[in-house]
Amino acid sequence: MSKGKVLLCLYRGGQHAHQVKGLLGCVENELGIRKYIESKGYELVSTDSKDPIGSSEVDKHLKDAEVVITTPFYPAYITKERMAKAPNLKICVTAGVGSDHVDLNAANEHGITVTEVTGSNVVSVSEHAVMTILDLVRNFVPAHEQAVSKGWDIAGAAMNSYDLEGKTVATVGAGRIGYRILERLIAFNPKKLYYYDYQGLSKELVDRLNKASEVLNGRGDIVERVENLEDMLGKSDVVTINAPLHEKTKGLFNKELISKMKDGAWLVNTARGAICVAEDVAEALESGKLRGYGGDVWNVQPAPDNHPWRTMRNQFGGGNAMTPHISGTSLDAQARYSAGVQNILESYFSGKHDYRPQDVIVSGGRYATKSYGERNDGK
Amino acid sequence: MSKGKVLLCLYRGGQHAHQVKGLLGCVENELGIRKYIESKGYELVSTDSKDPIGSSEVDKHLKDAEVVITTPFYPAYITKERMAKAPNLKICVTAGVGSDHVDLNAANEHGITVTEVTGSNVVSVSEHAVMTILDLVRNFVPAHEQAVSKGWDIAGAAMNSYDLEGKTVATVGAGRIGYRILERLIAFNPKKLYYYDYQGLSKELVDRLNKASEVLNGRGDIVERVENLEDMLGKSDVVTINAPLHEKTKGLFNKELISKMKDGAWLVNTARGAICVAEDVAEALESGKLRGYGGDVWNVQPAPDNHPWRTMRNQFGGGNAMTPHISGTSLDAQARYSAGVQNILESYFSGKHDYRPQDVIVSGGRYATKSYGERNDGK
Repeated sequence: MSKGKVLLCLYRGGQHAHQVKGLLGCVENELGIRKYIESKGYELVSTDSKDPIGSSEVDKHLKDAEVVITTPFYPAYITKERMAKAPNLKICVTAGVGSDHVDLNAANEHGITVTEVTGSNVVSVSEHAVMTILDLVRNFVPAHEQAVSKGWDIAGAAMNSYDLEGKTVATVGAGRIGYRILERLIAFNPKKLYYYDYQGLSKELVDRLNKASEVLNGRGDIVERVENLEDMLGKSDVVTINAPLHEKTKGLFNKELISKMKDGAWLVNTARGAICVAEDVAEALESGKLRGYGGDVWNVQPAPDNHPWRTMRNQFGGGNAMTPHISGTSLDAQARYSAGVQNILESYFSGKHDYRPQDVIVSGGRYATKSYGERNDGK
Repeated sequence: MSKGKVLLCLYRGGQHAHQVKGLLGCVENELGIRKYIESKGYELVSTDSKDPIGSSEVDKHLKDAEVVITTPFYPAYITKERMAKAPNLKICVTAGVGSDHVDLNAANEHGITVTEVTGSNVVSVSEHAVMTILDLVRNFVPAHEQAVSKGWDIAGAAMNSYDLEGKTVATVGAGRIGYRILERLIAFNPKKLYYYDYQGLSKELVDRLNKASEVLNGRGDIVERVENLEDMLGKSDVVTINAPLHEKTKGLFNKELISKMKDGAWLVNTARGAICVAEDVAEALESGKLRGYGGDVWNVQPAPDNHPWRTMRNQFGGGNAMTPHISGTSLDAQARYSAGVQNILESYFSGKHDYRPQDVIVSGGRYATKSYGERNDGK
């Protein structure tokens, strides 16, 4: 008899799972940790059946699961109701970063630990954000569509294509990902890089960014913190969102806040879809208030077929650079978060609970990290 | 009666020309220089009719044109035959960069000056190249297609998605554009940046790149010149082509040279299409030798409907990031090259011929720049 049950919910890889062995993050390849888990005397159940809530395989096995592992890319939502039916559940592990699919308040009430593999995809997401900025500013999608569809209308692509150089770029949130986006933007010689965050970047990081700009652009004052979000939006050509989803950021970019942005600005969101109001973004794109919107996060995942972000376009027939939630699950990132999940399990199985502090979101009935804690204490 | 005729051949903007006033590079908006040209007593004829050679509007007006202005994005090919029928032609001006649509040997024979607006789009093209690298490495196109087509197959997109971080990137050619691509790649923390060129980068530029890497990546030896092209290709994950088209680079990337590349490498070409053998690239992509190919240049422009680069795909259903030839004609670039053409005309009309030296390709019967000169003297 096993010591306990580990429930793993991941997206299905299908034929891809066999074609590409590095695709660790799919349900067939199980993060490459089956042998490890079984060697510890635990039973592993893997499934991609997470809906509908109440009758899925996840619900069936939650009843006696001690550990639940899932991923932001295809999350099994661990709601208050599900927790109430999971008396043995001790720890939720996110294979990746971002644990808002877990009801953290309920986890606190039940004394369930919530962990994630911090840092495992910060590079991947920041690369995706910079790629999306370039795709939007340079108008890649309509141009590529011409190439495929046998078109050759240079004016039709060029009329909404700009250079990133000389533009003002701002990030809402300058944590691990926001900072890395700023790093990657410096060599593009933007006019200015602004950031808005409850916590300022350390002097060391600001100095690093400015020093790199001095070397590459001949000017060392490129980064500036802005205290007022609306002020920042009013002077930025490109805005990238890199904040966690919590009570203060949910629905933050609604019609009213978008109205404070520059006309024709580009908005990129690789953080969480629900930080933006989907219909308000689509309306702003279609009206020309926004010139483009892109990213890989949606307020419901998988996104329903009729989600407005799938097909919305600006007046130039472009301005949409959406993808499914993939930025943090490149093959390189999968290798990192699979290893990270195993490290967390090792800490758990050993009884030492000596997790990396930055991996712990909720533990012992309280929030361990400030950014998530904001949702409760209003800081 | 006018002092002479200026013939301007640009792509048609259509409705876009009126919609976007900044679309200076289309035939309707005439680089914004009609008033200027007429103020100098010259006649301006603008057309997008360049084919077929012999009976187009370009041919009709070449007979008595003194100045021809055209663009690489939609080039009027100024062949030996056309020059023979243009007895008054004194100067060809390229609105942009890259004058291989002009038969430079014939221009030398006829004593025709050939100029371009050097530097006007180096930033635009380098941004396009970095964007294309990210799109290919991260597998953007198939992921975006899922978003639009109502799909949600994370594994199907992730199985061919990587991080740029840690990859080795090489440029064939380290001139104004190749150098700027290296600059923009540093913050992505690549394993190594290689370059191959007949001329080494100056110590100042190498130091700048390495210094920026030291600041951002904590290691100051990121850039390295490689003497042997095949050696470089054999150790690079990403290869970007940034060389002019001349006799030594035409067809350079054929089946044989591509076979020297790493298996599953990505190849990006924003220089000139004819540097690659179209069928060999398509075959390499389909066989898996190349993981991706992208860029905006084609061996014939406009590309025919059945050009293999329009629809070629790798075994993962992606790997194609082609666009029409737009990288150098962003609205920001159009403003720069329109101003540059006027500067060249001012030097010409004034009789001073005090062009910026870097803008002169051919003058007084000889090559003025070394990179184009290679095609003759074999250096």
